[in-house]
Amino acid sequence: MSDLFIGIDLGGTNIKAGLVDREGALLNKISIPTEADRGRERILENICVAARDAAGDTSWDDIETIGIGSPGPLDYRTGLVYRSPNLKDWTNVPLADEISRRLDVRTFVDNDANVACWGEYWVGAGRDCGSVVLFTLGTGIGGGIILDHRLWRGSTGAGAEIGHMVIQAGGEKCGCGALGCLEVYASAPATVRRFQRIVQEGRDSSLAGAGEVTAGMIHEAACAGDGAARDALEATGYYLGVGVTNIVNVINPEAVLFSGGLAGAADILLPVIRREVSEHALEALTRNLTISIGALPDDAGVIGAAGCAMKRLESDG
Amino acid sequence: MSDLFIGIDLGGTNIKAGLVDREGALLNKISIPTEADRGRERILENICVAARDAAGDTSWDDIETIGIGSPGPLDYRTGLVYRSPNLKDWTNVPLADEISRRLDVRTFVDNDANVACWGEYWVGAGRDCGSVVLFTLGTGIGGGIILDHRLWRGSTGAGAEIGHMVIQAGGEKCGCGALGCLEVYASAPATVRRFQRIVQEGRDSSLAGAGEVTAGMIHEAACAGDGAARDALEATGYYLGVGVTNIVNVINPEAVLFSGGLAGAADILLPVIRREVSEHALEALTRNLTISIGALPDDAGVIGAAGCAMKRLESDG
Repeated sequence: MSDLFIGIDLGGTNIKAGLVDREGALLNKISIPTEADRGRERILENICVAARDAAGDTSWDDIETIGIGSPGPLDYRTGLVYRSPNLKDWTNVPLADEISRRLDVRTFVDNDANVACWGEYWVGAGRDCGSVVLFTLGTGIGGGIILDHRLWRGSTGAGAEIGHMVIQAGGEKCGCGALGCLEVYASAPATVRRFQRIVQEGRDSSLAGAGEVTAGMIHEAACAGDGAARDALEATGYYLGVGVTNIVNVINPEAVLFSGGLAGAADILLPVIRREVSEHALEALTRNLTISIGALPDDAGVIGAAGCAMKRLESDG
Repeated sequence: MSDLFIGIDLGGTNIKAGLVDREGALLNKISIPTEADRGRERILENICVAARDAAGDTSWDDIETIGIGSPGPLDYRTGLVYRSPNLKDWTNVPLADEISRRLDVRTFVDNDANVACWGEYWVGAGRDCGSVVLFTLGTGIGGGIILDHRLWRGSTGAGAEIGHMVIQAGGEKCGCGALGCLEVYASAPATVRRFQRIVQEGRDSSLAGAGEVTAGMIHEAACAGDGAARDALEATGYYLGVGVTNIVNVINPEAVLFSGGLAGAADILLPVIRREVSEHALEALTRNLTISIGALPDDAGVIGAAGCAMKRLESDG
């Protein structure tokens, strides 16, 4: 047993890959363009290149297993990815089988938010906790749930859709078809929409003539003293606080963590989230509760993908 | 090993107790008044009487363990009940120790909604499911969560507070201090308040001059063709549907069940709940989902308390 594993974080822009040991240490890491627009065969080839590059000087025979964190609805049991909107020609891809066959190493596939949650639980901000819920904040809001030291994927294997928790019954329409999902109020695009509304209503802002505005620009402006930008972000923090309150009252984990692009605005978001939870979650459930950003912003996916695969190899599934 | 267990359902009005075998069959059951207003010593004495009565002709030496489903915040690990508003002089009661000492049988205490969920999972409407979420609908809304064939009590042991999931951010104030909890929109008192509002707004109702109205009366009137009563109940069903949608999207159990007084109105509530979930929960998560009332309306607590105790005796905790 060489005790070495490859973790892969498959994204729409880049494929990150790393060589990980049994304790979760990242021994080597690389990132190459996904070339998502070049279609299925090229993407699969790039995943293989990334895996081999990550192994570095390590003999390929010493790699015990490969884990891939993948976007899109998928069946983690078979490693079949139904589709991923950002990858071209990517429908019903038997991802685990394809990579396993090409690289001759057993390969496991899991949802990208689930493996990121596992990474944070294993060696990140949730490392001393038995139960962790991760919110991934970006274009949408995804999630991962670890209970009693085990990943809870839901009975269908596709649960933990935290962003589609309704926090405003009858509210704004979500892309999923429901009304009032957390994602419509607290994702990066939701923050941009709110900021634009605030400006349209007549508030001054340093970004008023800036053309297309991103959540990152709003965060920068807020840090530089822009009140409209700060209000837009704080409202996002409030809604995230409502979502966390629900997770605390229902699931009651030891740690609630945030990752993804919008987590970069944690300096503004976290105080609002923590205040909302401390005022409105049931007090008995908030003792010893940790609310923070992840400790592995760049590497949780890679490390977690390797860790999930290692765990599944050991339990054979 | 005699394989016989006593389950006790401690309520504010009655103490129910039963003799349960290893397969979850209820061999004998009794119910006696709690005499909740007569204070701690009398209530503890009555629990002992109920337990001995439930054993019937069975030799006391053949009882392996006693399980109690208790209301109120409690520490299931030690069996200490912090308080129960409906029981007089009932603060910091070491319930497991008191009963164990008086009856000379090892005793386990768990939250009443948790044991009811276990009863339904073990031999009731959730018997073929690995994951079950139970909503207990009454004066408040409680809950129990079973994941991967195990009770999930939360990291503090006091989780599964489903009624305090916020479904209307900034909405009506809940007794817990938060705004917009499910309980404020979908409990029995919430249904009565909504009905009264509908009538005050000018709707005709057969109950208009009836004095104090209960949720049971509203259900009866709705069944007899009263439109105002039906509207009040259907709105409750809608909000429950939002709550179930959240449970499905986040936790993704195989079964969502309902018990408690208001579950008696299931003929009106369930169709509305099912429609809301089928329209608004993520489709991939609703495959094979069961939404129904519990199969053991009177006995889930007794059977589940015995079953939880049996399970804990075996795992020694």
